[in-house]
Parts: sequence; C-alpha cells; structure tokens
Amino acid sequence: MEIMRVKDELVCTRRVPGLGSEDLRILESQSGALSVAVDPVGAPAGSWVFTTSGSAARYALKNPETLTDLTICGIIDQWEVTAAEG
Amino acid sequence: MEIMRVKDELVCTRRVPGLGSEDLRILESQSGALSVAVDPVGAPAGSWVFTTSGSAARYALKNPETLTDLTICGIIDQWEVTAAEG
Amino acid sequence: MEIMRVKDELVCTRRVPGLGSEDLRILESQSGALSVAVDPVGAPAGSWVFTTSGSAARYALKNPETLTDLTICGIIDQWEVTAAEG
Amino acid sequence: MEIMRVKDELVCTRRVPGLGSEDLRILESQSGALSVAVDPVGAPAGSWVFTTSGSAARYALKNPETLTDLTICGIIDQWEVTAAEG
Amino acid sequence: MEIMRVKDELVCTRRVPGLGSEDLRILESQSGALSVAVDPVGAPAGSWVFTTSGSAARYALKNPETLTDLTICGIIDQWEVTAAEG
Repeated sequence: MEIMRVKDELVCTRRVPGLGSEDLRILESQSGALSVAVDPVGAPAGSWVFTTSGSAARYALKNPETLTDLTICGIIDQWEVTAAEG
Repeated sequence: MEIMRVKDELVCTRRVPGLGSEDLRILESQSGALSVAVDPVGAPAGSWVFTTSGSAARYALKNPETLTDLTICGIIDQWEVTAAEG
Repeated sequence: MEIMRVKDELVCTRRVPGLGSEDLRILESQSGALSVAVDPVGAPAGSWVFTTSGSAARYALKNPETLTDLTICGIIDQWEVTAAEG
Repeated sequence: MEIMRVKDELVCTRRVPGLGSEDLRILESQSGALSVAVDPVGAPAGSWVFTTSGSAARYALKNPETLTDLTICGIIDQWEVTAAEG
Repeated sequence: MEIMRVKDELVCTRRVPGLGSEDLRILESQSGALSVAVDPVGAPAGSWVFTTSGSAARYALKNPETLTDLTICGIIDQWEVTAAEG
C-alpha cells in the first residue's frame, strides 16, 4: 500500500456508470505525483492516508464492482514529513 | 486512477479481435509520457480525464471482455494545470 | 496500453511450457527500456505497436492460458516520432 | 518480489473493515521510497524482507480476503547492503 | 515480460507457507534494480532471462497457488549487453 496525502476533492459529473457516486479524492504521492482514489473512510484534505491498488481496490468498497484501481484504506494516526524524507 | 490529458485519437486498423471497435485515445500523463486508452465517455482532445487501469479497465466497458488495460473513467470538470504543478 | 516499437525477435528455446510456441518480440519503450511481448498480429521490426499488460495480455491470445504479461494489441497506422517527443 | 527493509510499524486506528487487524509495517525500498505492507511473518524493524504484490499479496494471508496489495513473504537470512549497491 | 540477469540465489528460511520450497533467484534489471523471482527453469547465475509478473507469475508454476508475483519464463539464447544499451 502506498502512503499519500489528501490534496482535494475531485468534481467529475461525467463519469462511467461503474463508479457510482463514490467520493473521489485527489491524492499526492511522496514524490509529488497526483492521482485519484475512491474514499470510503472520509479522509479530510491534508491528512495522510495509505491506499490499496489493483483488484484489492475494488474489494475495499461495499460494492466490489466499483471501477476503481485506487482506494483509501485508512488514515494514518501520525505521520511526520521528516519520516518520509529520512 | 491517473489524471491525464487527451492528446489525439489513435488510428489503428490492424488490431487483435478482442479490442472490438472501441474508440482509442492517445493520452499524455502529467510527466509527459504517452499511452493509449479505450474511451467510453467521448472525451474531446485537450480535456483532462482520469483513467482506471488493470482488470478494472475491462469492467468499465459495456463488453467486459474488451482487451484493454487502460480506460477513461470520467472527464474532470475543472482542472488547473497549476494544481498539477503545485 | 503502452506505445512501443518492435526492435527484434527473441530467440529462446528453453522456456516454461505455458508460453507455448508463441512468437516473442523485443520491444523498446518511448524511454528506451526493453521488454518482451507475445505477438499475435505479426508486427515487423521497426513498426510502432501498442501493447496491453496484466491479465488482459493473456486474454488477447487464442489460448488465454498463455503465460504472458505483455501482448501486442495492434499496429499503429501512422506514428510520428515527433509526436512522441512533443 | 521486491527486496525491502522494515522501517517501522504503522499505527492506523481508522481503517477499512477489510484490513482486519493485520499488522502493518512501513517498508523502505532500495531507492528509499516508503510503502505499507501486511506482515504475516513478524519481521522486526531493520530486517531485510521480500514482498509480493498484486493479487498474490492477498493469497499470502490466512484470510485471502484481506485488502492488501503488498505482503511480506519472508525474511532474508543475510543481505549485504553492498550487494544492493553493487 | 522483462529482461533481467540472474545475480544470485536467495537464501530465506523463514517464509510464508504459500511459497513452498520453490527456488528463489535475485535478479538485476537493466537499470540495476534488484528483485526476487521464482525460478522453475533452473537458470544459472549470470544468465539473461525474461520474467512474467502479476497473476501470470503464479500460473507459470506447477502449483499455481504459489505466492509469487515474478517468475522466470525462459533463458534467452543470446543477449548482447550492447543491444540492451543501444
């Protein structure tokens, strides 16, 4: 699982039906790359989370047919940026 | 899911049968790399989209046996390049 | 799907049974990295192709139990290197 | 499978139900990137391990429905950092 | 499939049961990164091989429940380092 930071919500009205109405978040990786994840835990902007990818990303949701390849798994209780840089 | 920009259509007459007649798009990633995706939402060139990969890319299509590993999931309503660079 | 160029054939007599006698090609990515793909479309050296990876790579073949993770999906009709560099 | 070093435990009280109460570890790759893995073998901090990813990461656990995409497979008996750098 | 060179065996007595007693090899990628693969073909150190990843890595073995995500598929008959560098 990857460690990422929630940057923002993603507003996207025109989407494939298979994504349902899941909340989407823009995440920033440790190297600064941005990606989009489904958020089943309600992670606020700025929090550090870890994500699961691939087929596990679908099983992490109530509806396992949701067409995601990246899902937030949990909010990290405490994360020091210095740890990521060390 | 990755955030990418639609660059062009891809014309490809000689393809494996499993791709059917799906529309193909050339996408550009945030780092400038090019890849090819199936487009079920009709994204025009220049628009910002997000894509799903792996097995989810197949399930995003009406025919889940289409042999894609990258499918456009939705068009982002608003995307500022500065956000991607910030 | 990734855009790659066919560089050469790959001669490999000692292989796992699950690969059958599929034609193997050495492909070069846009960044110059080399990889090996199964070629069901008969792409000549020098041509630009796009490839599918992961489980879709297996389904692209007549025998979906072939043990590939990269399969050529089609030959691109026209590809300008400048487009890849632009 | 990737070769990584155990850096620390990950404390995360708010997580998706599918992760159960599995032990989570922060791992550091050879290039210094951090990620999170489920640890079924009890690897102490500082030890070198190798990990499996993708769907195999789930099957490596007693409960194959655990929503991980990275699982520690084993502890390497002896690993010289110089080998990784050579 | 990726092209890699066999560097060494991997000794690992403490491993998850799902790996069985498969032979493990340390492989070096073209860019010098090290990873671990299951070796069903008996590739000697120094030889160039190509590997399959993801779910195909499991199907390449006699026991498809082996928990690998990287398996050696075959030994390349002839590989010139200059080809990899060209």
